[in-house]
Amino acid sequence: MTDPLRVGIAGLGTVGASVVRVLASKATELQRQCGRPIAVTGVSARDASRDRGIDLSAAQWFDDPVALAKSDDIDVFVELMGGDEGPARQALKTALDSGRHVVTANKALLAKHGVALAEAAEKKGVLLNYEAAVAGGIPVIKTMREAMAGNSVSRVVGILNGTCNYILSRMEAEAISFEDCLKDAQRLGYAEADPTFDIEGNDTAHKLSILTSLAFGTKIAASDIYLEGISNISQADIRAAAALGYRIKLLGVAQRTDSGIEQRVHPTMVPNQSVIAQVMGVTNAVAISTDILGDLLLVGPGAGGNATASAVVGDIADIAKSQPGFQHGPVFGWPAKELKPYKKAQMRAHAGGYFIRLTVHDRAGVFAAIAKRMADNDISLESIVQQADSSLDPSQKTVVLVTHETTEAAVRRAVDGITKDGQLTDKAQVIRIERAG
Amino acid sequence: MTDPLRVGIAGLGTVGASVVRVLASKATELQRQCGRPIAVTGVSARDASRDRGIDLSAAQWFDDPVALAKSDDIDVFVELMGGDEGPARQALKTALDSGRHVVTANKALLAKHGVALAEAAEKKGVLLNYEAAVAGGIPVIKTMREAMAGNSVSRVVGILNGTCNYILSRMEAEAISFEDCLKDAQRLGYAEADPTFDIEGNDTAHKLSILTSLAFGTKIAASDIYLEGISNISQADIRAAAALGYRIKLLGVAQRTDSGIEQRVHPTMVPNQSVIAQVMGVTNAVAISTDILGDLLLVGPGAGGNATASAVVGDIADIAKSQPGFQHGPVFGWPAKELKPYKKAQMRAHAGGYFIRLTVHDRAGVFAAIAKRMADNDISLESIVQQADSSLDPSQKTVVLVTHETTEAAVRRAVDGITKDGQLTDKAQVIRIERAG
Repeated sequence: MTDPLRVGIAGLGTVGASVVRVLASKATELQRQCGRPIAVTGVSARDASRDRGIDLSAAQWFDDPVALAKSDDIDVFVELMGGDEGPARQALKTALDSGRHVVTANKALLAKHGVALAEAAEKKGVLLNYEAAVAGGIPVIKTMREAMAGNSVSRVVGILNGTCNYILSRMEAEAISFEDCLKDAQRLGYAEADPTFDIEGNDTAHKLSILTSLAFGTKIAASDIYLEGISNISQADIRAAAALGYRIKLLGVAQRTDSGIEQRVHPTMVPNQSVIAQVMGVTNAVAISTDILGDLLLVGPGAGGNATASAVVGDIADIAKSQPGFQHGPVFGWPAKELKPYKKAQMRAHAGGYFIRLTVHDRAGVFAAIAKRMADNDISLESIVQQADSSLDPSQKTVVLVTHETTEAAVRRAVDGITKDGQLTDKAQVIRIERAG
Repeated sequence: MTDPLRVGIAGLGTVGASVVRVLASKATELQRQCGRPIAVTGVSARDASRDRGIDLSAAQWFDDPVALAKSDDIDVFVELMGGDEGPARQALKTALDSGRHVVTANKALLAKHGVALAEAAEKKGVLLNYEAAVAGGIPVIKTMREAMAGNSVSRVVGILNGTCNYILSRMEAEAISFEDCLKDAQRLGYAEADPTFDIEGNDTAHKLSILTSLAFGTKIAASDIYLEGISNISQADIRAAAALGYRIKLLGVAQRTDSGIEQRVHPTMVPNQSVIAQVMGVTNAVAISTDILGDLLLVGPGAGGNATASAVVGDIADIAKSQPGFQHGPVFGWPAKELKPYKKAQMRAHAGGYFIRLTVHDRAGVFAAIAKRMADNDISLESIVQQADSSLDPSQKTVVLVTHETTEAAVRRAVDGITKDGQLTDKAQVIRIERAG
């Protein structure tokens, strides 16, 4: 086992360059850990002339990633190009069909084509490793795919997008608006020029869909996720949450229910005293609940060149340790062909506590009218309080309700009723509460 | 690959029985995940007649675990007997020498003989898996041994003993004394009849020594750990910590310093706002800092039959997935023969912040005398405050100091000086502060 593992890397952006750097600077350690050297023998990127500050002299340059993917001089194809179609998909598929192991950080591609790619990998008996695709450096794929063998997962909850968690953390810490916070995040490089994909929850949804498949042995269903971003979270929500002992986080939640599997991404109130509430800034976290192990929480860097590279290098090292022909278990925990169809739970059936913030006319009878609509829909209240809000016109006031466990459908009916009653001066804000995690 | 993996289990206590139960109840899932069935073909325990509520009819009974360890009818020997010498050590060694893979939960045995056993495993090319030995169900071994390949660890910090964390959590939540809390923990089964091993930190030290070896590629040195238990933590400490925004945890800390590796187990003040401070009750946590990945925190159940069984089953599944002859990388990350000697850092050189609680005579000049001793030893103070303590005689008062970063040696000299000055009416309490983690 002293032949080097030959690695071809497609995509030399921040992560790709960092992988090349780590493989070079940690060559001795990795060889000792893996029992064989790891050599980068091929690379591909858009611009051959760009100086990336890395030594690529020992690697063959490919203008075409697909040519690299089927090159006879690589054992592993590392896809770090990004994109859910086009060259990334084509090159990755070519590598698998050519019997190369694959390591990828591409959550969008897996969310869309993961099952088909897993089938291709399993057909050829090669590994498809993707630790870096979900929660960056946190070893959540390895944990769910390997360490939790035999466990039945009931629930996965994650802070999976660093940009959103950074914005929500700063909004709370510095009492600044979502818009100002976003601008600052863009300036600091924590948010993209077009931040829609992050702040509206799509990135979280891609990652969640992969965890859902691992958790429940179902086909990936990224387009079937209830989605709500953080762009309508206001200082009033943050302050009201704090007053009640909660913090607002953008969570991805996947859980087994009687009617099917619930997959949802939305701003969520979590108790201040919970561990997940303490996860601040760009840090990610994943909480997993199972029947045997119980509750596990993993917290760490969800993005960044080095953290992501660490996950990619871990995936490459796992391949280096395995002998030719070794089968490391199925890509998504269960053989891809045996993944069950995804059966979506009805969002309106979602049961839980709710935080409801209403801006109402300051007049007699408002509390009574609100309380009656709640009672009519069998919603039991934990609290209903009026909160001071100096930003409001004196003719208006803010009423905050916290409900005991009820259903999404009941809450929607009640809020529709209150709206129809003419009590509101602004759209109602409804935020789900997760007490566990 | 459809031959079953044949498992022999020695030790049928809580964990052993739970492993048998999980392997039976999750047989279908495990077969799908591993690509082959897992069968318990042999068992050994002290009392063959005891009803454990599990079906052992398909397994051969061995009165002698050593005979089971070398039986031709097993591929994997699972050691759940406990004890750092005697039958456990002998059986485990026999299994390795006979070319059987081994799974163990025995931290005491590994802390004492881990390197020799790893050498035996690596010589035979078999796996020695021990996820359950440290932090129960938390996949910290897999994370450090596999996911962090190529990373250089600078620091590992852990809440590794559920009994201690349970006692400290309850002391804070209910303002009861250490003694009352311990009695209650014993009544509830969270503490042993003889709790010394847990509360004096020995159990934490065993687990820490294994993590240290994985972190730094050094030989295990469990007897070279600075040890301080929680039995002298009082309500006065808990209250003073809370007033300063800290919580007291029993931490195991291993870190690389200029003078060598620091391994220490002691009560520690951690900031209330840190994630690790929120880890309450019997839950365990491990925080790992590395050069590439950054900071990772794992939180989960550190003990209990099911959580421990989950780790054991994960280890067995990893073996089931590997083909005969497959080598999963070295037992302690680096080949056992290449593990470096452990070079101990001097505890007196330990640098950090300190909490010092002094019970002093209530008279003029006390503050000045204390402050002078601190200044004489180049200790810069963050705060020095007098705290009300109704449990004290009115002629005495409590003074709490928090220092900026200084050394253990300086603190000891300063406290010795204050003691010699005749200011104290009781022994000084010194608790280290960890701001990270």
